[in-house]
Order: sequence, then C-alpha cells, then structure tokens
Amino acid sequence: MSDPNPRKRVLSGMRPTGRLHLGNYMGALYNWVRLQDEYECYFFIADIHALTTDYADPGDLSDKSFQVAVDFLSAGLDPEKCVIFRQSAVPAHSELHTLLSMITPLGWLERVPTYKDQQEQLREKDLNTYGFLGYPLLQSADILLYQPDFVPVGQDQVAHVELTREVARRFNQLYSSAETPEVAAAKSDKEKIKAEVGDNAIEAEILPEPKVLLTPSPKLPGLDGRKMSKSYGNTIMLSDAPDDIRKKLKTMVTDSARVRRTDPGNPDVCPVGDLHKVFSNKEKIEKVYAGCTTASIGCIECKGWCADSIIEEIEPIRIRRAELEANPERVYQILADGAERARARAAETMQQVRSVIGLG
Amino acid sequence: MSDPNPRKRVLSGMRPTGRLHLGNYMGALYNWVRLQDEYECYFFIADIHALTTDYADPGDLSDKSFQVAVDFLSAGLDPEKCVIFRQSAVPAHSELHTLLSMITPLGWLERVPTYKDQQEQLREKDLNTYGFLGYPLLQSADILLYQPDFVPVGQDQVAHVELTREVARRFNQLYSSAETPEVAAAKSDKEKIKAEVGDNAIEAEILPEPKVLLTPSPKLPGLDGRKMSKSYGNTIMLSDAPDDIRKKLKTMVTDSARVRRTDPGNPDVCPVGDLHKVFSNKEKIEKVYAGCTTASIGCIECKGWCADSIIEEIEPIRIRRAELEANPERVYQILADGAERARARAAETMQQVRSVIGLG
Repeated sequence: MSDPNPRKRVLSGMRPTGRLHLGNYMGALYNWVRLQDEYECYFFIADIHALTTDYADPGDLSDKSFQVAVDFLSAGLDPEKCVIFRQSAVPAHSELHTLLSMITPLGWLERVPTYKDQQEQLREKDLNTYGFLGYPLLQSADILLYQPDFVPVGQDQVAHVELTREVARRFNQLYSSAETPEVAAAKSDKEKIKAEVGDNAIEAEILPEPKVLLTPSPKLPGLDGRKMSKSYGNTIMLSDAPDDIRKKLKTMVTDSARVRRTDPGNPDVCPVGDLHKVFSNKEKIEKVYAGCTTASIGCIECKGWCADSIIEEIEPIRIRRAELEANPERVYQILADGAERARARAAETMQQVRSVIGLG
Repeated sequence: MSDPNPRKRVLSGMRPTGRLHLGNYMGALYNWVRLQDEYECYFFIADIHALTTDYADPGDLSDKSFQVAVDFLSAGLDPEKCVIFRQSAVPAHSELHTLLSMITPLGWLERVPTYKDQQEQLREKDLNTYGFLGYPLLQSADILLYQPDFVPVGQDQVAHVELTREVARRFNQLYSSAETPEVAAAKSDKEKIKAEVGDNAIEAEILPEPKVLLTPSPKLPGLDGRKMSKSYGNTIMLSDAPDDIRKKLKTMVTDSARVRRTDPGNPDVCPVGDLHKVFSNKEKIEKVYAGCTTASIGCIECKGWCADSIIEEIEPIRIRRAELEANPERVYQILADGAERARARAAETMQQVRSVIGLG
C-alpha cells in the first residue's frame, strides 16, 4: 500500500566552483541543511552545467567537484538523510535533456531573461553556443528527472522554474494521454488514492509541475562591499582559519561616511553591519547599533565582533572539512552511493518517459 | 599486443519509419549488408532522431523500431558480424550530445543546409524547436561515440559528416592537450605503433575525425515516378508479396511520350526503366531497350519482367521477415545483445571524454 503521506520531494543543485564561500553557504547550502530533515532531498553538484560557461577552460573540474562535496558534508548535509551526487554520474540528466529538447520551442529559451544578460556580463567568453542557449532546459531536465514537489531557489532563479513548469506541461499534454501501462497505472493509483484520502489535487502526469520553494538569501557583501563572489576576489571561505578571517575582516570596507573614529556611523549602510545581521545574535547586533551610531566603538572593534560571529558559525565546518579532506576515499564513496541512489530514482522516471514516447 | 591491421570501424543509422521500402533498402541497407564483411560495423535504429520531426505524433515508435529491426535482419544484417541496436537503448548518445552542445557554436547549426530546407518542406509541423536545431549535432554524437573510421552516407548527408568532423576537431583542440592518463596512454600507444609499423598517420585524438564512405544510392522512383517515399504513398515494401508487387507495377507510370502500344518508348525517361537498371540483369536490360525502343513489347510485358526482377531480389527477404515476425522474442534478444555491445563500446569513448573534461 502506498503511504498516503509520503515526505515531499525536493531537488536542488550547485555548480562546482571549488571551495565554497560564505555567499554560497548562506545563499543555498545553509537552507539545504535545514530542508533535509523535512523533505526527501536530492542535492547535486552540477558539473555538466559548469561547462555551459566554462567549456573552454573548465580548470580541474574533478577537484572542484570534490571540494564542493567536502563543503556540502562539512556544512551538515547528511548522506543518511539526503542524496548527494554529481550530475555527470547520472546519464539520465542528459537523456531527459535530449528528449525534452525535441518539444521545447527555441523562443522559450531565447526569452529566458538570464540568456542575454549573462552573454553580456561574460563578454570575454564566447557564449554563442548551442549548450549555453539550452542550459535552462538542462536545468529543467535536472529537476523533472526526480519528479520533485519543490525546488528551493532564490528569487533570481524563479524564471527557470517557471520554464521547467512550462516544459513539463507541454510534455504532459503531448504524451500523457497515450494509454500506456504506466499511464493506466498512474491513473488507477490516482483513483485509489482519491478514494482513500479524498485528495483531488493528486495528479497523474508523468512529469508533475514542481513548485518554487522560495528560500531566504540574505544580502551577503564581500570584503569590498560588492556581492560576495569568487570572481571579485572578495570572499571569506568556509575553509578559512580563524586568523585568516580576522585578517580579512580588518581589510573590509565600512560605512564610507564614517571617516574619523569620532564620527558616528550607520550599520544599515555598512557592509560589516550586513554581515552582523546574518551571523551575529540579537544582543550583539544591538551593541553594534548602539556603539556605532554613537561612535563609542570603532570599526576595528566592530569587525572583531563580526569575525567572532562568523568564526563561531563556520569553525565547526572548517574542522569537519579538514577531517574529510584527509579522508578523500570517504567522500568519493558517499558520492558513489549517492549516484547509485540518484540513478535508481531517475530510472523510474525515465522508464515512464520512454514508455509514453514509445522508446521503451 | 595491438593488432597492427585491425578492421576499420563503420557506423550508420536509420530512422524507424516502420516497414522499409525498396528506396530505404537500396539507399542504405543493401550497402550495409555488403559492408559487414569488410568492416567492424555498428548499425542503429535512430529512434531518438525520429522525435526531431515527429515529437508531436511519434505514432507507435516502439513497433516501428521493431519492424525496422526485422527488415535489417531479413535483408541480411547478421548479428554475428555486426552490432544492431536502438539508439535510445544507449544513453551515451544523449550524454555525448549534451557535452558536445557546450562547445558547438549556434551558427554552425543554423548554417547546416538541411535546417532551413526541412523547416520549409515540413511546414505543417512546428520545427522551431531546440531539438530540431540540434539534430545534426545529435548525429555527430551518434557517430563520434563509436570513434569510427568511416560513415557510409549518400551525397545528401555529406554536410552532416563535415559538421561532425568540425565538432571533433574543436573538441580535440579544446581538450586533448590536457595531460590525463588517457591522453598519455594514447600517445604512448601511438609512439609504439609508429615504431612498429612506421605509420605516421595514426592519431591520438580522443574523437578522431571520421571520413565519408560515399555509398551508391541509385535513382529509385516510386509508382508515380517521383522519388520512392512513404509520404508519397508510392512505395514497394520489402514485405510485399509477389502478387502485390505485380499489381503495384501494373499501376506504375511509364514514359509519358509512349501513348499507344505501337509508339516506340525510351527506357531512359521511364520510371520502370529506372527500376530495371537497379534490379534486372544485363541481359534483361538489353531486351527491355530492344523491345521498348522498337515497340515490339508493350509496357505491360515490360512491367511483368520488372516485377520478376524485384521479386527475385526481395522474396528471400520477405520469407525471412515472416519467420522473424512470428518470433519477435528473437528480434528483441538480438536488439538487447546489440545494445549491450554498443553500450560497452560507447563506455570506452565516454570514459576518455569524461576524463579529459574533468567529469571523471
């Protein structure tokens, strides 16, 4: 008998940029660690996606993927609770991408807002490739392959999930009406479940439309005040030791209006203030406001407190990360196990997809 | 020790259009049967390709693929001599396609001559899809996946092989310089072989550029005088019984200048004459010329001779086909065995490809 209240499924991925920084952590990984207790989670390292922009110079993609896996685990993703794997270890991502390419109008991809934006932002790279145009569709395949209920994303990725829903809708319209054994089985399951739990929201589509799970992604400035980003060289890494963090914080820009020690400052326009809001507790934040706006503390002192807060959050991660780096076989084994579980789940979807199309 | 004179490898595919007609047979399959004795051959049923134009209405793709497999075997492809499989049974086709998409400029695909041509010819279908634009690249992946020496194609497909060579070249330029164990091994093999056989044409590229093996594709008119094609409804099928063939031939158009029985005709402008040139022996062709140009035979008689020739060629095929259709499990088993061998060969290439990119 099917469980009438199975855990909802969640899928998300991250590009292998190498060791992660605080921005990557707070923008996604921190949330994922919290999601794994509530949902059935699949988290993947999007190593094929890395090629959409970096095909000409992927660097040591294998090591970058390893480092991201180490950060995933160090930050608290638990292979007993969620499935962690590399995208390239599950060929079905490419398989579903290729099949969905057949039904996806070119115009849908040309109109994805990030398409032209990124081409302009990354002008030094030649992104006039077939794969770069198709990367939101590869994302759609990544998602639909696991038939998830939710995709946890930030506001900037909502348009991609919307495309995914459109592609799923088109697929279901084109193929789900075929009377294959799978569709018939899905239908009868649906009817059975309806009869049991009276839930008329259950759908029998092969590729259910996933919903956005909007995750908080707090403003996280880098040392120079711009968004923290590897390409700006303004990052604090999850692997940074306490001394490094203190040194980095000392160089961080602050409220530019506070020129002298005796000038009062404004934490709301200060990048260090933004970091406090993310990493410090309420009490400390109150002290920062009081001290800064009255000039009773200087920036050096405030930065020291901020460093303390960041170190408190990430020092346990750094310690676990050192242990894992010393034991790479364990990380590879976790990725291999995750890939096996992901392949098995993906195979379920692909069997249904192939069957309704007639490739079975 | 490696064989200094291994058989050259050949790869070709055909879309699953259902039962094959004489045009499909003479345009490709007839040649394939001859190639399998000389080359290491991989022949596949391009069921994913069928979706590039027919995604909206693939029909019973599974049965169409089965019928093509039956025709392959009936026409003489021997699973002991060559590898026969369905494209969709080897996910690496999609995997390599996705990876190659990253390095392929959009302009290369937009400029493939068949792209705009086919969109115009098939105006009733919406071919403004991402997959239709990418179908020559999927073909390139189909080919490069087996690292073949030759691709047997007709003149109309030469541009596609040229694209394949360009894509291979770009891949090799981007990735083959990396000093991975695979490249190093390939290099040292190269040097060893050079020392042994003094052949400096041997290349160490991961994706060698395949060469065109131009195959004869004789003019094969259908019953209405246009090119024989399923979409014109003017075909003679490999599965047609002798009586059907005789009946069909009787309706075939002839030299339109020969209006009366007493008018002399010209076999060189007569579709039945074209069929004689393909299927009749020299002696019979001489009789046709002599009889037709002097009006000493009528078209009915000439068509009877033509039917005899066609029946002689395809009656053994029809008989084998009836046996195989009565024993579908055997056909499925041959396809399953072929898929296993194809997957194993494809895995060799993919391991090299993944390794140089850093997905290993």
